Amino acid sequence: MRQVDIIIKKRDNIELSKEEIKFMIDGYTKGDIPDYQMSAFLMAIYFNGMTDNEVFYLTESMMNSGDVLDLSQIDGIKVDKHSTGGVGDKTTLVVAPICASLGVKVAKMSGRGLGHTGGTLDKLESIPGYDINLTEEEFINQVNTINAAVMGQTKKLAPADKLLYSLRDVTGTVPSIPLIASSIMSKKLAAGADAIVLDVKVGAGAFMKTKEEALKLARLMVSIGNKFNKKMTAILTNMDEPLGMAVGNSLEVIEAINTLNGKGPKDLNELCILAAADLILEAKKAKDMDEAISLAKRQIENKEALMAFAKMVEAQKGDKSYILDINKFEMPKYTIPVEATKDGYVEKIDALAIGNAAMYLGAGRQKIEDNIDHSVGIVLSKKVGDKVNKGEAIAFMYSNKANNELEYDMILKAYNIGNNKVNPKLILDIVK
Amino acid sequence: MRQVDIIIKKRDNIELSKEEIKFMIDGYTKGDIPDYQMSAFLMAIYFNGMTDNEVFYLTESMMNSGDVLDLSQIDGIKVDKHSTGGVGDKTTLVVAPICASLGVKVAKMSGRGLGHTGGTLDKLESIPGYDINLTEEEFINQVNTINAAVMGQTKKLAPADKLLYSLRDVTGTVPSIPLIASSIMSKKLAAGADAIVLDVKVGAGAFMKTKEEALKLARLMVSIGNKFNKKMTAILTNMDEPLGMAVGNSLEVIEAINTLNGKGPKDLNELCILAAADLILEAKKAKDMDEAISLAKRQIENKEALMAFAKMVEAQKGDKSYILDINKFEMPKYTIPVEATKDGYVEKIDALAIGNAAMYLGAGRQKIEDNIDHSVGIVLSKKVGDKVNKGEAIAFMYSNKANNELEYDMILKAYNIGNNKVNPKLILDIVK
Repeated sequence: MRQVDIIIKKRDNIELSKEEIKFMIDGYTKGDIPDYQMSAFLMAIYFNGMTDNEVFYLTESMMNSGDVLDLSQIDGIKVDKHSTGGVGDKTTLVVAPICASLGVKVAKMSGRGLGHTGGTLDKLESIPGYDINLTEEEFINQVNTINAAVMGQTKKLAPADKLLYSLRDVTGTVPSIPLIASSIMSKKLAAGADAIVLDVKVGAGAFMKTKEEALKLARLMVSIGNKFNKKMTAILTNMDEPLGMAVGNSLEVIEAINTLNGKGPKDLNELCILAAADLILEAKKAKDMDEAISLAKRQIENKEALMAFAKMVEAQKGDKSYILDINKFEMPKYTIPVEATKDGYVEKIDALAIGNAAMYLGAGRQKIEDNIDHSVGIVLSKKVGDKVNKGEAIAFMYSNKANNELEYDMILKAYNIGNNKVNPKLILDIVK
Repeated sequence: MRQVDIIIKKRDNIELSKEEIKFMIDGYTKGDIPDYQMSAFLMAIYFNGMTDNEVFYLTESMMNSGDVLDLSQIDGIKVDKHSTGGVGDKTTLVVAPICASLGVKVAKMSGRGLGHTGGTLDKLESIPGYDINLTEEEFINQVNTINAAVMGQTKKLAPADKLLYSLRDVTGTVPSIPLIASSIMSKKLAAGADAIVLDVKVGAGAFMKTKEEALKLARLMVSIGNKFNKKMTAILTNMDEPLGMAVGNSLEVIEAINTLNGKGPKDLNELCILAAADLILEAKKAKDMDEAISLAKRQIENKEALMAFAKMVEAQKGDKSYILDINKFEMPKYTIPVEATKDGYVEKIDALAIGNAAMYLGAGRQKIEDNIDHSVGIVLSKKVGDKVNKGEAIAFMYSNKANNELEYDMILKAYNIGNNKVNPKLILDIVK
């Protein structure tokens, strides 16, 4: 087998065998296949796509390039959740506690944020003391005792994906549905859960710009998971505006706590209940979706979910008093209202621009090595469909810098204010 | 300017500017742009092609990546000739002498052979003493005094092409018409001639498998040359069977000498007369094509072309007595007839298979570092359209090995013998 022949085969749109794909991935992971051949191969995949079989073998090879977690020591059905990345997405911080409070085993590995999308680990680290580094044993013990753990991905999980992603990033081969699907699924499969709910973001602030593309990606990921005997659900959600009101690390944790207190923004609350209910059902803690939804809502009302979050924070050495009193979170020096320049209805909010503005305020990283300021960010006060008057605050910037003109302008421009009262829809589709 | 943005632009089929293309080629030649980005870029070009402007800028950047020969010290119109590479192609050895004998200045740089296609330099080196290494000054002086020089390409000519070709070879990006056109033309333009005749091979034994593809390549190269104010002609010729009868280095030199003696095979003779006449006309040594053809034929009849070849060989330290007496060429140990296994007409000869058989006999290189045996090769005795009887020799192998079973079999299988008397056509089209 010669790698150039495999590249040519892909280039000529002839289906690759399991052995050929494994040869490429194993060879690349070991360093036997050079970057320049892999990048040509990836570009050929970008153009010709992959058959379902090819994506399956690619995912399998990437999954097997490192450790596959054995969660068999955790009793019952283990669940996991993944979002393709959006602005203001703090869903995990609500869904995991709801599930845990019902005895559903949530074993989740998360990532850090890069660019305009935030990372769950960064958000959790805005709780003083929270430790995202658990050993595999600690992780399993914690899920067994308190039903939930959210930790950083270990380095040995799907190393091929890490290598490939770095290469794709600099060779223009990121936006390829088979490559995105195999990247996400190889990590999720290696993380070992039995049921996985995927939140596939659609819109201006997401990788998938159209519902059509997002559906393709969702169906592909569900079918890959099913082939590995995983219970799969993909929820397509609107990312034409940020999710919830808060964008920024501790600001999002505060919003998640508010949601667990029954005071969350409507869209965030809706998505969290749906995702949690799906996992509750998959974990057989409810007989149907209606019951699962009722249970999820009840756990918020009775504060059991909030207590489960506090327990998880405590188990990972975080200061749980912050969860019980959000006023303990340190606020940045400046709070600056962004004021509407005309009357009307909010027709659109460019999520990408809001995410970038938050990044420039210091909430996110432009480069991997950047430090972030956990306290800063943006809290929207108006969302799509809301009426605004000229001079009224549409959002508040939370900043530690004196000069925030650039970010002010970005936020102002991100808002489209017009005469149409739009009724935004959050849940666009569900793929099972 | 970031290279990844240029890759993405090409991937998305947006026309690149002159500056962007120059940035990629200069950066790659200097080593600032890594192989993995260039290979992704090349694969995107493979899929999306290039506009005429892009190919022009690519060719220009590659031409300017090294030295551009200044032939202004040579009086008159300088001509050059290039073949896209075929089996049994010894045209240069006949065309250059015909032209030189009429005072046309032939300043030609050639390459070595690799794989199934032979190289003019290797053929010339089968003449004892022939030195392919001239300085630029020697090259210019020789053309000025005896009208012809054929030397090896200097290392400083279009180094970007050399780098790109090596990368294309291992990344499945060789068969791309804009990349082939810019590769050939960057070298030809850097070699400095005023008029260029291109022999674009078409068929099973060539890069271009169909006339349609070959026409595209020919038109593109002619238009690139014209933009640089070069007089361009492209002749599309059939490479469904080898050109002439001989395949192998000294065997081809002998056939070229026979042709210069008026005893060449019909197809080779026809092509050499046409290509030479084109250059004679471009060099203004004839008033029209008819006169140019008559002149070319006359120079063979009166042996002036043969004498010009002897002069060129002598000028480059070769033993010219070999040109005047072909019996001086050393013959290999074994001459093995390949015998037809049935009666009929030769309907097809797989040129690629014949080229590969000659390579295995030792006439060509599988890898760049391989040594070649100048004496060995194949001489066909039957060509397409010829009648053969069972047991009759269709070809002779010239070998220094005792065991030639593999090659015997390859040659036998390369011949299609059937009931149809085909009348092969050599010249398929001419593009000006």
